Amino acid sequence: MTDHSSIDYFTEERSVEAVNARIGADCHDRLATVMESLVRHLHAFVKDVELTQDEWGMAIDFLTKTGQICDENRQEYILLSDVLGVSMLVDAINNRRPTGATENTVLGPFHVGGAPDYPMGTNITKDGARETCLFEGRIVDLDGNPIEGAKLDVWCDNEDGFYDVQQPDVQPPFNNRGIFTSGADGRYWFRGIRPVSYPIPDDGPVGQLLGHLGRHPFRPAHMHFIVSAPGFDTVTTHTFVDGDPYLTSDAVFGVKASLITEYEPVEDGDTKWRSHFDFVLHRQNTQ
Amino acid sequence: MTDHSSIDYFTEERSVEAVNARIGADCHDRLATVMESLVRHLHAFVKDVELTQDEWGMAIDFLTKTGQICDENRQEYILLSDVLGVSMLVDAINNRRPTGATENTVLGPFHVGGAPDYPMGTNITKDGARETCLFEGRIVDLDGNPIEGAKLDVWCDNEDGFYDVQQPDVQPPFNNRGIFTSGADGRYWFRGIRPVSYPIPDDGPVGQLLGHLGRHPFRPAHMHFIVSAPGFDTVTTHTFVDGDPYLTSDAVFGVKASLITEYEPVEDGDTKWRSHFDFVLHRQNTQ
Repeated sequence: MTDHSSIDYFTEERSVEAVNARIGADCHDRLATVMESLVRHLHAFVKDVELTQDEWGMAIDFLTKTGQICDENRQEYILLSDVLGVSMLVDAINNRRPTGATENTVLGPFHVGGAPDYPMGTNITKDGARETCLFEGRIVDLDGNPIEGAKLDVWCDNEDGFYDVQQPDVQPPFNNRGIFTSGADGRYWFRGIRPVSYPIPDDGPVGQLLGHLGRHPFRPAHMHFIVSAPGFDTVTTHTFVDGDPYLTSDAVFGVKASLITEYEPVEDGDTKWRSHFDFVLHRQNTQ
Repeated sequence: MTDHSSIDYFTEERSVEAVNARIGADCHDRLATVMESLVRHLHAFVKDVELTQDEWGMAIDFLTKTGQICDENRQEYILLSDVLGVSMLVDAINNRRPTGATENTVLGPFHVGGAPDYPMGTNITKDGARETCLFEGRIVDLDGNPIEGAKLDVWCDNEDGFYDVQQPDVQPPFNNRGIFTSGADGRYWFRGIRPVSYPIPDDGPVGQLLGHLGRHPFRPAHMHFIVSAPGFDTVTTHTFVDGDPYLTSDAVFGVKASLITEYEPVEDGDTKWRSHFDFVLHRQNTQ
């Protein structure tokens, strides 16, 4: 019989090395780097907690159900990434900017391409609103110079806490969505509702996990923005409503102090609120 | 406006603390321990490789597809755990035994309860075999004393590399499966085929991943055993066929040197091979 004593078979101690030694010479370098690190950290986790066979079975079951509830309208794995802070971490790593530039936050699952182009001042709320809010401010560079031709792609939920795409039979198409383009003064202004806080979908495996962890599924009220201009880093962000009870416990960890915005009461016809926010864009590094 | 500067919102640097601080006081202690560790290691992985937004998207897509291909006959998440060495690591952590006791390896997805009880010597292969193999040995304790009443639950693939449950329309029920019970001498013996190597299912996301990593999907030939006896730790293991070309590259990392068994040629009627293996059971700790 062959002598097998000199061969490095899998052991608890050398589990990471045993798995990573198998990667072939023809594997793409970046895939090899990512998978080697994944295996190292995944095995460290299993060893750290000494995962039991039953817990492993529960994990397999959870991961399977999380995939199976996904369809074209529901992405439970993005939710899982969100509630574990992974989405925000990836966003942070890929959008480091100098102090003073507007910070990014998560895109979220409800952005829709092809929203209507509107002239400044348009009200994006098509299903009525108890109280209208004016959103206004400037788009400038890090030196405070106005940026002409910047595009603001904006969207938010309605007063019931749902995005139009969540209620295609209830809300008009492109309700609370629009695209605005700045002029030479870099100013923007449009009307809509004061956004409201809402729960992320919590009737699936991720919602159950949040429940077991003693966490709620709510996001604080926010208006989404993608602000882009030729020659500048695109900013994907929200502005949050100051005073919202969920600011310090956003289920997806999206809040940054610099993105919290005062909503001032005003008296201007139907317009009862005013939200001012200036977007500061960072010039792209020219290669 | 509220002063938000003193509040610890999510940052790249404090991402782990931000997420783990949310676990509620009513969360089960063990769940809190497992999830805190998971978040710590998962974030360390993302930071280590500085995962890009595109790579994150590919990961979401992969995890989703891995869940969606699962059904009552296919468990792609167990395969994923297997090929990343996680199944073997969990098995190792939960089955540490003193030197000399038979080592565990993975159960695998093809065990079926309720196999027939057979008298010693029975041939478990019901679909014919080119060459019959005699499996024999003893079940003993760490001091070498025979164990009476030990149950051997055995199963393997057929000569085409498929388990009966993978081919319900082709193979007879309980083909290559059976349960044997030892007498006072602790001996066992039964007949079957020399198992053959086979690929794990590789037409799904896990098979694609293996391909990208430059890895093959094959498992070396093995006979499965669950050996149990009152008062002893149950051993779930395989014996591997010495000389198999996949012994050092088992797709699921199941091989241990102590489980590799010589298959000796013999001349005894139809019986052309003999595989000898002694199972050494470890007495359970009495609490």
